[in-house]
Amino acid sequence: MAVQSTELILDELKKLLGEERATSNDTVRDLHGRDESYHAVRPADIVVFPETTDEVSAIVKTAAKHKVPIVPFGLGSSLEGHVIPYNGGITIDFSLMNKILEIREDDFLVRVQPGVTRTQLNKELKKRGLFFSVDPGADATLGGMAATNASGTTTVKYGVMRDQVRDLEVVLADGSVIHTGSLAAKSASGLHLNGLFVGSEGTLGCFTELTLRVYGIPEQIAAARASFPTIDDAVTAVVSIQQAGVPISRVELVDEPSMQQVNRHAGTDYPVKPTLFLEFSGNVAGLRQDIEFTKEIVSDLGCDNLEFEMDQEGMNRLWEARHHLAYSYIHSNPGRKMMVTDVCVPISELAGAVHHARETVDRMGLIGGITGHVGDGNFHIILMIDMNNPEEVKKSEQLNEAIVSYALDRNGTCTGEHGVGVGKLKYQAREHGAALAVMETIKRALDPDHLMNPGKLFSPSKEDA
Amino acid sequence: MAVQSTELILDELKKLLGEERATSNDTVRDLHGRDESYHAVRPADIVVFPETTDEVSAIVKTAAKHKVPIVPFGLGSSLEGHVIPYNGGITIDFSLMNKILEIREDDFLVRVQPGVTRTQLNKELKKRGLFFSVDPGADATLGGMAATNASGTTTVKYGVMRDQVRDLEVVLADGSVIHTGSLAAKSASGLHLNGLFVGSEGTLGCFTELTLRVYGIPEQIAAARASFPTIDDAVTAVVSIQQAGVPISRVELVDEPSMQQVNRHAGTDYPVKPTLFLEFSGNVAGLRQDIEFTKEIVSDLGCDNLEFEMDQEGMNRLWEARHHLAYSYIHSNPGRKMMVTDVCVPISELAGAVHHARETVDRMGLIGGITGHVGDGNFHIILMIDMNNPEEVKKSEQLNEAIVSYALDRNGTCTGEHGVGVGKLKYQAREHGAALAVMETIKRALDPDHLMNPGKLFSPSKEDA
Repeated sequence: MAVQSTELILDELKKLLGEERATSNDTVRDLHGRDESYHAVRPADIVVFPETTDEVSAIVKTAAKHKVPIVPFGLGSSLEGHVIPYNGGITIDFSLMNKILEIREDDFLVRVQPGVTRTQLNKELKKRGLFFSVDPGADATLGGMAATNASGTTTVKYGVMRDQVRDLEVVLADGSVIHTGSLAAKSASGLHLNGLFVGSEGTLGCFTELTLRVYGIPEQIAAARASFPTIDDAVTAVVSIQQAGVPISRVELVDEPSMQQVNRHAGTDYPVKPTLFLEFSGNVAGLRQDIEFTKEIVSDLGCDNLEFEMDQEGMNRLWEARHHLAYSYIHSNPGRKMMVTDVCVPISELAGAVHHARETVDRMGLIGGITGHVGDGNFHIILMIDMNNPEEVKKSEQLNEAIVSYALDRNGTCTGEHGVGVGKLKYQAREHGAALAVMETIKRALDPDHLMNPGKLFSPSKEDA
Repeated sequence: MAVQSTELILDELKKLLGEERATSNDTVRDLHGRDESYHAVRPADIVVFPETTDEVSAIVKTAAKHKVPIVPFGLGSSLEGHVIPYNGGITIDFSLMNKILEIREDDFLVRVQPGVTRTQLNKELKKRGLFFSVDPGADATLGGMAATNASGTTTVKYGVMRDQVRDLEVVLADGSVIHTGSLAAKSASGLHLNGLFVGSEGTLGCFTELTLRVYGIPEQIAAARASFPTIDDAVTAVVSIQQAGVPISRVELVDEPSMQQVNRHAGTDYPVKPTLFLEFSGNVAGLRQDIEFTKEIVSDLGCDNLEFEMDQEGMNRLWEARHHLAYSYIHSNPGRKMMVTDVCVPISELAGAVHHARETVDRMGLIGGITGHVGDGNFHIILMIDMNNPEEVKKSEQLNEAIVSYALDRNGTCTGEHGVGVGKLKYQAREHGAALAVMETIKRALDPDHLMNPGKLFSPSKEDA
């Protein structure tokens, strides 16, 4: 934005929100110009801190009047540049909208403002024997998690963020306010706006309130770890367990070189083999039977070391290697920046995809660990890149392209859980084919001036360039 | 349509499909002019029976060229007039597109044509130890079930139809073909078209192929029946069981007068009390513990008669009253037509809603049974109406309005699982508020001539009138 128009708009916003909650202070602008990814930094022009839906609506109307972009901002933990305001405009920081508004225990529902984080919510829920299921690792805001359709290790049992959203209050591009759902557990009424807005990455509107599904804490949790001769055996084990109808609540794969890296870093002596980290939940009698059954299945596949624990300390110990994976790579590679790939393939293609990923990483001489949410077919390469080495940066981009290409050839997706942002834009046409035009039609219809988080999820329009 | 244009279009379609698969035969037209509901009959103008996606695309292009409506038709088991061609045009009968194209066991996925029915699919899946979870009662086609976001008794555990759809092949209003998803178990790429098209009731396009999620058959199923002093006690029991994290796979409520009706009809002596029909699934040890725990919970709420069975015969016997409910009303009321209400409320409002429903039915002097999917808050009044008695027809409409109004006042929905069709059109504005305009914007953007199943889900445009 031109300096003059920035000042004019800031003045208007200060009138609306007061001196304190609308700013172009350099430190604040910088803090809102980055996320947790390797994507280039671009400071915000103006940052505002609304406290109510009405204020968000007024901010969006101001942006619409001046035809400047709106970028919603949670905690900046996104991994594909979602919140970086490459086209400037007004960044809406939701950190002051961080209240848990209502816990409806009998309905298994909570109503929260978008700035509430998942651990903040879980702390309150625990007192009532309830929990919120989606765990993407980072302590992200629930608004951000809904905007990117976050998921994580528990998805195999409880589903992704979209599955938890019962209703959203959304401020649209024209400043009007809608509700996308209701409090009913299911509905066959109207188009499914809940699903459409979840994962829309701020491009269709800003979330100002979320009603989310929560669950009763299971009586008992059991953790297990099992290593296998090959990745294929490990994946086959997971499929067999699921085909037998045994409910798994988490199942993570760590590949052989990554186990070695953990041992080297932590001084541990885990078997250097493809390893599954599992979690089951239910009642004690049922869990014991599930685990006995699981033992039989994995032993047929060459695993002679299934260990399991039911107390918290023992469970933590069993899963330690998985928890330490990213950290062990970060700590062992000071000065390098983390880039994480994020494809998801049909489960039958997962073993092949992990082999391909490992071969490609090694052939290119890159440093990277591989971990996968096996139950979903989603896996990550945690790459450690020297950003000052243009050759290595280029190679890591080529690697990402090769991984995505492999996944798309098998009817998978370029992003299982991190979202498109700016990092996965170039794969949208190939992945969605003719459906991309339908998405663009919807975007144009709901945001004709292309002001809602422009350049994310959808390729920049000509005016943005 | 004018007779002349009907003949012209029929000629074109016969050239496309051959003499046999495009018709305006009176019997065929009549068969495609009704569904299983009480809504007025209106014979189709032209009925076509495509065998391929290309044929569907060519049919839709023909309709677009002549600006006549397209109405997709499965088996006609819809309950709100979805498939009745009130605006004439071309009815596409999908009964020849009834192949199971692929079963990907390791991916827990099947790819089917839209005319495949759920029992046809389950018969094939059973051989592989798998099953398809959605059970709406009727043996509907999977295309129809996706179009209306069908659900039923298993939703409390496995979710609704939308939760099972991984990908749809859709022919859009201009005849172009898109895929709305991929084979990946989860994705954060692009707008969620899967969710948007499921439940769109043929108003955004015709489904020509579906990729659906399936599940491993659980080791053991247990059925249970428990009657309670009051409806409130029964609902409280369900909430308590769920809060304790015990997974229920089905839970149905039948109210007191409905149990009496079953006894009268079938000569049984079930306790005439609000009754829960439950199903659990898992391994034997886990189930026994779940049932013991459930016994404790229900006994605290005044239930001293929880019975349970694990063999198929015993389970059928336990659930008999629930299975016979609709039939007992139909059989005892010859000459009357069934009308079924279908609201869904937050679970905390369910007991009150069932009380209100029973009081209103009795006060109006109508005949009706009440059954509810308690885990979801969705319940039905099975009304038996003398369609030749205008006074009674009017009363039943007033009843439906009162039931919907009660649900919407509590932030529920006017239809939990039957869909909008023409029957729930008048409640859309009240239920969705400003969001209805967003839905209409999307509809206009994707079907500017309003030719895809016009008058359903969306209020008729001026041209339709």
